[in-house]
Amino acid sequence: MGNLLIINARIITPQGSTARCGEEMKQLLDLLNGYIEITDGIITAVGTGKPAKKKGYELLDAQGKVVLPGFVDSHTHLVFGGYRPDEFVWRMNGDSYMNIMARGGGIYNTVRATREATFDELKIKAEWYIDAMSRMGVTTVEGKSGYGLDQDTELKQLEVMQAINQDPLRKVDIATTYLGAHAVASEYGGNAKDYIDFMIAKMLPLIAERGLAENCDVFCEKGVFSVVESRRLLEAARELGFGIKLHADEIVTLGGAELAAELKARSADHLLHASDAGIEAMAKAGVVATLLPLTAFTLREPYARGRYMIDKGCAVALATDLNPGSCCSGSIPLLFATACLYMHMSVEEAITAITLNGAAAIGKADKIGSIEVGKQADLVVLDTDTPNVLPYYTGMNSVWHTIKRGKVLHQA
Amino acid sequence: MGNLLIINARIITPQGSTARCGEEMKQLLDLLNGYIEITDGIITAVGTGKPAKKKGYELLDAQGKVVLPGFVDSHTHLVFGGYRPDEFVWRMNGDSYMNIMARGGGIYNTVRATREATFDELKIKAEWYIDAMSRMGVTTVEGKSGYGLDQDTELKQLEVMQAINQDPLRKVDIATTYLGAHAVASEYGGNAKDYIDFMIAKMLPLIAERGLAENCDVFCEKGVFSVVESRRLLEAARELGFGIKLHADEIVTLGGAELAAELKARSADHLLHASDAGIEAMAKAGVVATLLPLTAFTLREPYARGRYMIDKGCAVALATDLNPGSCCSGSIPLLFATACLYMHMSVEEAITAITLNGAAAIGKADKIGSIEVGKQADLVVLDTDTPNVLPYYTGMNSVWHTIKRGKVLHQA
Repeated sequence: MGNLLIINARIITPQGSTARCGEEMKQLLDLLNGYIEITDGIITAVGTGKPAKKKGYELLDAQGKVVLPGFVDSHTHLVFGGYRPDEFVWRMNGDSYMNIMARGGGIYNTVRATREATFDELKIKAEWYIDAMSRMGVTTVEGKSGYGLDQDTELKQLEVMQAINQDPLRKVDIATTYLGAHAVASEYGGNAKDYIDFMIAKMLPLIAERGLAENCDVFCEKGVFSVVESRRLLEAARELGFGIKLHADEIVTLGGAELAAELKARSADHLLHASDAGIEAMAKAGVVATLLPLTAFTLREPYARGRYMIDKGCAVALATDLNPGSCCSGSIPLLFATACLYMHMSVEEAITAITLNGAAAIGKADKIGSIEVGKQADLVVLDTDTPNVLPYYTGMNSVWHTIKRGKVLHQA
Repeated sequence: MGNLLIINARIITPQGSTARCGEEMKQLLDLLNGYIEITDGIITAVGTGKPAKKKGYELLDAQGKVVLPGFVDSHTHLVFGGYRPDEFVWRMNGDSYMNIMARGGGIYNTVRATREATFDELKIKAEWYIDAMSRMGVTTVEGKSGYGLDQDTELKQLEVMQAINQDPLRKVDIATTYLGAHAVASEYGGNAKDYIDFMIAKMLPLIAERGLAENCDVFCEKGVFSVVESRRLLEAARELGFGIKLHADEIVTLGGAELAAELKARSADHLLHASDAGIEAMAKAGVVATLLPLTAFTLREPYARGRYMIDKGCAVALATDLNPGSCCSGSIPLLFATACLYMHMSVEEAITAITLNGAAAIGKADKIGSIEVGKQADLVVLDTDTPNVLPYYTGMNSVWHTIKRGKVLHQA
């Protein structure tokens, strides 16, 4: 189990155990006629030509195929109750997100449905998405809470992820993030300060004690949580050992990017309206800029300035933002297409963004995100001899196999 | 075989045996708790409530599901040799289509590869796409020749489609189109007139005699075939009984839409730069405007004016344009997303566009494209209770079953 020898492959991978910044993002190792030896689910050798024969290893001939690191989708909200296609169509017809929220719709619809949903309902639904994402090459996904806002439901969301992670046959690992600060719980009547007090006093210690989340995230946005409120929450989270992340500058330029740099967050995400100064501060501080172009596509917003960020030396990651509201999509093919065609990233940069830099955005670049000895054998085999198909098969899946901890999940 | 009773379904369908124009496009029948009786692959009853029990009918309980007519993708180039991901990346980096053609790339690359490919190679490759499209709900696809340009290869492409159509277990029917006028064959050194002479004198009669194509199409575009040249070819084709279609006004405003109206073509396709006068002429003449937003997406061109066309009374169809150059995508989910989000079509209009109007664009609206007694039982069952998921699951497949001639192809 987990002993595998891949031969005759074209191996393409970024290298290292930290995010690649700026120019480094396009510098990929590209081995022709390569092999990968995997022992107990860990990469134990990488090279070219014929590897030494070993007993007890399954053989995978990847002649004419490209092998990449498994995709790391570092920003999703994949545990939720209900769904909201009708609101999507309202917005399609011109309603703004803030308007729909003001009408009592938006996130509070999902909060209600998630509070009502049973543990099993949430788990089955999340597993449906995980299956679909695994077929598209995802081997690690970040998952956020944030559709409960109250104690029990936030814990329920995190426990669903924990249960999936405890399945030894899981196709995807979930990196867990507490996003209680997704919106002000309606019980607080719009009083963000009191709700943050509750999270700091009660939720963060409880979640830390039970080991239910690795990261703490906040929706730092006009009308939701201010920069000052976000800072207070994230500093408390950091004290307790959480990695910290921000939804930043999505709708207006608020200074979320600057705050992420100040706090040396793992990532700041969305960034459609990040300022030049914020982008430069993030580059200097080594904060990963996680871009979510599927959401820009569905909201018909201008895409985040991916090209500019890379040129300024940022480490850019790409993620889907899968959620029941603005972007009910986990489409990796569409992610590559939008990043390459509309954010002007090269194929090489997009690969780094969704492998090693995605891993860095969840604090796991030392374990996953590249094909190197000692890393977990999470891999994608494309049914083709060039990675250029990733934007070229626009919206179509080009994954032949996804390999999780050395186990081949057959797809094609 | 082909006897099926679908019960408890939400049935949504346009109605009629001709294209729906303008306002009619959004007028769908919407039956709750509906049933569909299918006998020998033909729809024999549609209604609500409990149908009469019948012996020898397979039962499909569609409780909580939406049933639509099977999707008709009325513009593809699905039989081709080779593929061109590297050129796609060149263009992504700024090269124009015309530039790539001038560099000897573009379509002539595929012509060479298609000439070299064996019959079986082409067939296996086309079937790969057909499988993928069937999983996304496509039950009929149009396929064009046009990657041979010489006699033998054009016939080979059409014979591949014929062979697929002769398979009694086929998942998809192919409507066949001769597109010899896709480019001037290089043997003619740029002499479009002589090449058209050859098609009129030799190819059209041969193809008509052997029954290898239902339609004749031409790439009417600046630097390819002029309006005068296109007219001459299409009039000759019509004389021989072909349905006629045009690639019109894709790159510049040339008058292709006007020509389509003048000739009462089945459809004019692309139309990114169609003039107001051309659009009005098409509406008057009842020519289907077939829009291909995936190609606009990949070429980063402004989308065709779908909303305007419908408002002016046109019958709009949607198709993928699957081809190895500009748009190597058969993604139906992305087609719905681009049509609804970026061409401002409603979900209802988009459904009509990819069912009944697609059928009209290939001259088959009397046999397919709606759920009505007497029509072929080609259906899509969505894994949901609302059609609004079609744009909402952005780029993700929401098809549970595709049903071809009453046979359930299990997908989910």
